[in-house]
Amino acid sequence: MVNIALLGLGTVGTGVVEILNERRNSLKLLTGKDIVIKKILVNNINKKRDVNLREGILTDDFNSIVKDEEIDILIEVTGDLENSYKYITEGINNKKNIVTANKSVVSKYFEEFSQLAAKNNVSFLYESSVAGGIPVIKPLREQIKINDINRIQGILNGTCNYILTRMIEEGKDYGEILKMAQELGYAEADPTDDVEGHDTLRKLRILATLGLQGKITEEDILLYGISNIDKLDIDYIKDMNSTVKLIGEVNLEADKFTAIVQPTIVRRDDYFASVNMAYNSVAFEGNNVGELKFYGAGAGKLPTANAVLTDVLDIIRESNNRENELGHRELINNNKNIIGDYYLRVSYMGEKGLEEIEKLGEEKICKDGSLIILIKETKLKDITNLLNKLKLEKKDYFLARILN
Amino acid sequence: MVNIALLGLGTVGTGVVEILNERRNSLKLLTGKDIVIKKILVNNINKKRDVNLREGILTDDFNSIVKDEEIDILIEVTGDLENSYKYITEGINNKKNIVTANKSVVSKYFEEFSQLAAKNNVSFLYESSVAGGIPVIKPLREQIKINDINRIQGILNGTCNYILTRMIEEGKDYGEILKMAQELGYAEADPTDDVEGHDTLRKLRILATLGLQGKITEEDILLYGISNIDKLDIDYIKDMNSTVKLIGEVNLEADKFTAIVQPTIVRRDDYFASVNMAYNSVAFEGNNVGELKFYGAGAGKLPTANAVLTDVLDIIRESNNRENELGHRELINNNKNIIGDYYLRVSYMGEKGLEEIEKLGEEKICKDGSLIILIKETKLKDITNLLNKLKLEKKDYFLARILN
Repeated sequence: MVNIALLGLGTVGTGVVEILNERRNSLKLLTGKDIVIKKILVNNINKKRDVNLREGILTDDFNSIVKDEEIDILIEVTGDLENSYKYITEGINNKKNIVTANKSVVSKYFEEFSQLAAKNNVSFLYESSVAGGIPVIKPLREQIKINDINRIQGILNGTCNYILTRMIEEGKDYGEILKMAQELGYAEADPTDDVEGHDTLRKLRILATLGLQGKITEEDILLYGISNIDKLDIDYIKDMNSTVKLIGEVNLEADKFTAIVQPTIVRRDDYFASVNMAYNSVAFEGNNVGELKFYGAGAGKLPTANAVLTDVLDIIRESNNRENELGHRELINNNKNIIGDYYLRVSYMGEKGLEEIEKLGEEKICKDGSLIILIKETKLKDITNLLNKLKLEKKDYFLARILN
Repeated sequence: MVNIALLGLGTVGTGVVEILNERRNSLKLLTGKDIVIKKILVNNINKKRDVNLREGILTDDFNSIVKDEEIDILIEVTGDLENSYKYITEGINNKKNIVTANKSVVSKYFEEFSQLAAKNNVSFLYESSVAGGIPVIKPLREQIKINDINRIQGILNGTCNYILTRMIEEGKDYGEILKMAQELGYAEADPTDDVEGHDTLRKLRILATLGLQGKITEEDILLYGISNIDKLDIDYIKDMNSTVKLIGEVNLEADKFTAIVQPTIVRRDDYFASVNMAYNSVAFEGNNVGELKFYGAGAGKLPTANAVLTDVLDIIRESNNRENELGHRELINNNKNIIGDYYLRVSYMGEKGLEEIEKLGEEKICKDGSLIILIKETKLKDITNLLNKLKLEKKDYFLARILN
């Protein structure tokens, strides 16, 4: 028998219970072990839940879980940053294996958790924290053993991808689509974390640190969200026979890396253009395996719970490495030299600034009081320096990379 | 120390030697074990090779390998059907773990090898036999534990995909592109196995049997290759804002499956349209995880050798299950009820047959003495029965599914 404790019974936690209820017998046949959820930590044990639970399984006392020697695995799906740090560290210190879907806490304490788990000879697994149901952490972990990874790219946030897909398909305004996304549950009441790219950034930080085998912090990553995109941009991008995605990307050359999350214009026939709605994708490149791409549901109850359970099965089969798999390469941030082709739209801003911006590129059009300019092979820093110098506020422009 | 024997030193075998030469030290650090190629089986030990080899490593005597008790793992990369069967079965019977890249032999003896390996408590792994460098067998093997798989689709043959991509891009004839593909090493001198779809069929048989957890044989799969496609088809497909791919697909509903390899017309903005040249892709759908798609190099020295080595590392870390993971579901072949939208081009054939074929669909055009007809929601069997009745030879028509 394997005893599990669930920390949190929100969407993902409920999915874990449902799949385990459905698969209990077949998993017993498969693993030779009965997987039992012994306790579930919740804030309110009296709240009504629409999932089948054993009497007395709920508790609001973390101590009763972490001190229970029969419990082997903690599944942390609280989504809560402060408490989850405590749960994970205390859990590891009490020799519990950890599975978490919580990207915020993994991103913030990645090295600490990895070291602590290795020291205590338990597993710390986080497949479901990046790209929901897509199995990508494990393939990446396997490929780094026989490859040098030199690039990772991803559409990592379902909310942004949903909004951008519908804006392109329906030609509607950002605000209008955001509102619909909120009504349908694809965006939070406060969407900042998603639409400003923070969530993508955290996932990129995790992928990059694992894949490049050197520490890449949240602060190492340049960040541009999607909230300032408008219908004018969408119309222009469609006319380019392209679409737009929020892409997180790291590149490595020798020991220098660049890391950025930014709206990215991709041609209609590009792979990333086929990743729509709430789907996610991760692509990475190794020196032996070449380019690999993974596509699947970026969120959702069952896909995320499914990813949680693949980690649980690895722990049960003892098939995962309990060493700290993070590397110690000293990498140098080279973001100041990021260079590329860019799309820039600036809302009307008076004569003087206009002239300086016009110098950035060749193709330009004025439309509805805005200037749209296509910029070739230019340092991103030079563009953003000019925007800062002109004291443009974020709402007054939209800047996107053009992927060639 | 882990001793390996390589059976075969062609493209993939050479790649294995190269990666192990490059990574020997880092793999030693990582696994705690020194991975050594002890012997390499070749036909001619005197042939000159352009890879770094230890003196005396080559042998033409399989017995000296299989009876060597120090050898733990056999990597079978001969590409040869008859001998490889003997090597694998004798290897397993002598308690060697097996890693093979040979899809023909896996497809033919999948159940036998799996049972024999489980009985002998050794591993039988074949990641590199399907879709080259793409890690897809392992994710599929993991997902079947917590999912019912109801669909698998794949672009599984790099030669076909290369030919079709270039025909679409350059608007050239099949024969012309095939000749260039042969000159560039993307197609064999005798391309039958690839262009008639046999290679795709074998890989689909492996994926389907593992994923659907019931035996699906080569004979269970309907097969249509690409050799009868012509420039007329390509022009028409481009006008449909589409492209064409050779796709292998199985679908399962309750206990009834359909399995087919066929040219498939996909819209330009479809995911599969972004899989070009010699790249491959596998997509599958589970009831919990939803749809997953994997993309990468379908062949090539280093990608395939890389996949071979991920299997080797799993054996060394003892992280793979040594049970026979093939299921025993009794599945019923339902190919006779395959239904869909189809594109049919028939070369000029006289009045009578023309009339019957015209009845199949609504949209039709006559061009260069050929009839092109788009057929909606029709049983494939009804179309092929008519083609047979009219005694049309394969060279006289091209039939492709239209994916919606």
